[in-house]
Amino acid sequence: MTQLLIIGGSDAGISAALRARELDATVTPTIVMADDFPNFSICGLPFFLSGEVPDWRNLAHRTTDDLARAGIQLMTNHRATAIDAENQVVTVIDSQAQEKHVAYDRLIIGTGAISNRPSIAGIDLPGVYFLRWMNDSFAVQRHLTEFEPQSVVIVGGGYIGLEMADALVLRGLKVTLVEHNPTVLKTVDASLGDMVKAELQRHNVTVANGVSIEAIQPKGNQLQVTGSHGFETIADLVLVAVGAKPNTQLAESAGIELGLTGAIRVNRKMETNVPNIYAAGDCVETWHRVLNQNTYLPLGTTAHKQGRVAGANAVGSNQEFAGSLGTQVVKVFELAIARTGLRDFEAAGFDPVTIESEVWDHKAYYPGAHKLRIRITGDRQTGKLLGAQIAGHYQGEVAKRIDIYATALFHEMTVEAVNDLDLSYTPPLGSPWDAVQMAAQAWSQALHH
Amino acid sequence: MTQLLIIGGSDAGISAALRARELDATVTPTIVMADDFPNFSICGLPFFLSGEVPDWRNLAHRTTDDLARAGIQLMTNHRATAIDAENQVVTVIDSQAQEKHVAYDRLIIGTGAISNRPSIAGIDLPGVYFLRWMNDSFAVQRHLTEFEPQSVVIVGGGYIGLEMADALVLRGLKVTLVEHNPTVLKTVDASLGDMVKAELQRHNVTVANGVSIEAIQPKGNQLQVTGSHGFETIADLVLVAVGAKPNTQLAESAGIELGLTGAIRVNRKMETNVPNIYAAGDCVETWHRVLNQNTYLPLGTTAHKQGRVAGANAVGSNQEFAGSLGTQVVKVFELAIARTGLRDFEAAGFDPVTIESEVWDHKAYYPGAHKLRIRITGDRQTGKLLGAQIAGHYQGEVAKRIDIYATALFHEMTVEAVNDLDLSYTPPLGSPWDAVQMAAQAWSQALHH
Repeated sequence: MTQLLIIGGSDAGISAALRARELDATVTPTIVMADDFPNFSICGLPFFLSGEVPDWRNLAHRTTDDLARAGIQLMTNHRATAIDAENQVVTVIDSQAQEKHVAYDRLIIGTGAISNRPSIAGIDLPGVYFLRWMNDSFAVQRHLTEFEPQSVVIVGGGYIGLEMADALVLRGLKVTLVEHNPTVLKTVDASLGDMVKAELQRHNVTVANGVSIEAIQPKGNQLQVTGSHGFETIADLVLVAVGAKPNTQLAESAGIELGLTGAIRVNRKMETNVPNIYAAGDCVETWHRVLNQNTYLPLGTTAHKQGRVAGANAVGSNQEFAGSLGTQVVKVFELAIARTGLRDFEAAGFDPVTIESEVWDHKAYYPGAHKLRIRITGDRQTGKLLGAQIAGHYQGEVAKRIDIYATALFHEMTVEAVNDLDLSYTPPLGSPWDAVQMAAQAWSQALHH
Repeated sequence: MTQLLIIGGSDAGISAALRARELDATVTPTIVMADDFPNFSICGLPFFLSGEVPDWRNLAHRTTDDLARAGIQLMTNHRATAIDAENQVVTVIDSQAQEKHVAYDRLIIGTGAISNRPSIAGIDLPGVYFLRWMNDSFAVQRHLTEFEPQSVVIVGGGYIGLEMADALVLRGLKVTLVEHNPTVLKTVDASLGDMVKAELQRHNVTVANGVSIEAIQPKGNQLQVTGSHGFETIADLVLVAVGAKPNTQLAESAGIELGLTGAIRVNRKMETNVPNIYAAGDCVETWHRVLNQNTYLPLGTTAHKQGRVAGANAVGSNQEFAGSLGTQVVKVFELAIARTGLRDFEAAGFDPVTIESEVWDHKAYYPGAHKLRIRITGDRQTGKLLGAQIAGHYQGEVAKRIDIYATALFHEMTVEAVNDLDLSYTPPLGSPWDAVQMAAQAWSQALHH
């Protein structure tokens, strides 16, 4: 009977445990986890803080009981401190600082990522928060409830920053969003980033682009935030969301190699360089299917898939991770912004061309039609689809339209061949050539004229 | 300079003309068409009759001016009566009954389909209508406006019947829908058909299943409709929508062969058996990509694609139609119902298994989540995806979720491999395993237990 030990009780760890147990009912996967919140949807934290999800318990993908019934053993509030790879033992410390030793036949590391902490003076002041794990959100929630702040500065215009801007506007705060890049949401091209900025402004968010925060100082009961280009504002609360980096300290202590991106190096079987140790999720390098090389793309969807592969292989299967396309979507107020695959500057080894179209989500004559802005990136030489970006009203099926491109990309289709796909149509929900095909045709026409 | 003549000004004909012109600017495609409504979205007729599209002119995909600017010459109100394939001349009659002769180098037939007229006593009475072309809808609209009917019997629970039930409820009529099959929308499995029936009933539509209409008789200013099992009702208006058949009379006159399904036989280049004559759209057989054989699947999306191939080949290209998967979607009140590929009884040559799941369209904790019912059909032997059906709230991205399956099906994926797709996720718009993947996992699990 395989002793399967998993470090980390979030997406990768839980998926691994469930899959291992599904394939081998004799295994009782044990999960060591630092907090008390197994299998929580941390992507849902902004919606808890907005008030849209009143009870944080609802953020659990599964309850502790569900996991127990699935045959998974949880060691909550246990922090793994060392891996002895030679003897296959992990040292853990419980909440009473008691050290324990847990043996394993197979170990899966799913320690996730940790928030980047920029070197800004005052970053540790009370009233300055980060947001990644459940406990982070409880701290913010406590602050919101106890001090009833009226204003917030959000540092960072990525996914979490944008979702928190939306959340805190909904909660009635005056929001200022600061992003050091010239546009917000730098994961998409500037024309779509500008749409996001306009959507923020339409909801009375003050957006400061191209500003680097330099200091946070107490000012009475408030915080004064200053930055480059003379930026200066005062707020009751500061939220810092400037990305994350892989949490690899424990793995490094066991002699596990990191990749170029600073994340744990794994092969497509999710094996590390150390025998019997797998790793998955936000702590590892991710094989990119189009680039055919490793990248760092920490996404919940990928963590689930990689965990599933690691869990299967840990109990004797021989699965491979099919690779990431970096497919992602975010909703900011009424706007959904999605992408898959590569943008021009990411398409190393290709000859990328990106063409933008504006197309209706469904026949314009039917009420409620929304314009979508679609950017297609394809290879000039081969005509191959390399990536796509879409922005438009969130009810315009933006999320699942990007998934059509993702599925096409998975199969290495050309842009032109997207027109061969037999997609559904009814006037209230599409067009005879779907929006994704009209954009593909615009790409082809732009290239041939 | 190629003389390109096209018969029919709807989806197939217009697509052919546009594509031919796009590839060869020296060609002036000429379209002969029986009515005065080129390039109209006849799928939009129910929304004109519901009042949602107040001006029928808005149903045009393109205006006559757009088409002229695109270099297309229209002969509206000209009916083609004969094809002389040997001399490559088509005889047409204009609205003054004048006969003309039009020569061609290449001919594309896009005559579409005609409504089935069941042999019911009284089918030709005033107040009984069919619905396929623009003029049909004008007749119904005139009746609605002049006589202000309060009640309608719709015969046929397929796409048009269901959309007209929705449309006429919106217009304030008391609607009775009669379908001779045991469920409505027989193009999907019964459990989804039952959801449609419930949705109709929720909107006060009286649904009579398993009833064959036998007679329509005048009763004062009204119509008495009687059918099997003692069905009897009185209404101000009767609408008959019991399917369509290919309009092949003209083609037959030229010695063009029909296929087993009664539609014009074409190869994947959209060539008929007669040299220099192509055909496309609702009048032809459609190559089915999964069945690898011809079927009759008259759909606007397919007509566009086939027309595009015919148009390209008519000016010297060598394109092939990639095949249909029968992907389709319909919205009935708040419900969207979609399908792609094969159902069990259609999967000749396979060993099909269908598993139904109920999954959320997005994380249930985020407001506005809807349950989707997804039915996956896969091959027991090979694990290959054969088809999928989805029903759920129309804002649950049902239409574009079926398109993910359609794209997977296009590439002959297994059901299990659907889990490898890198699909987008944010709690308001999806799940870490998208609904389409949860349903795929349920299929795999059902098969292995």
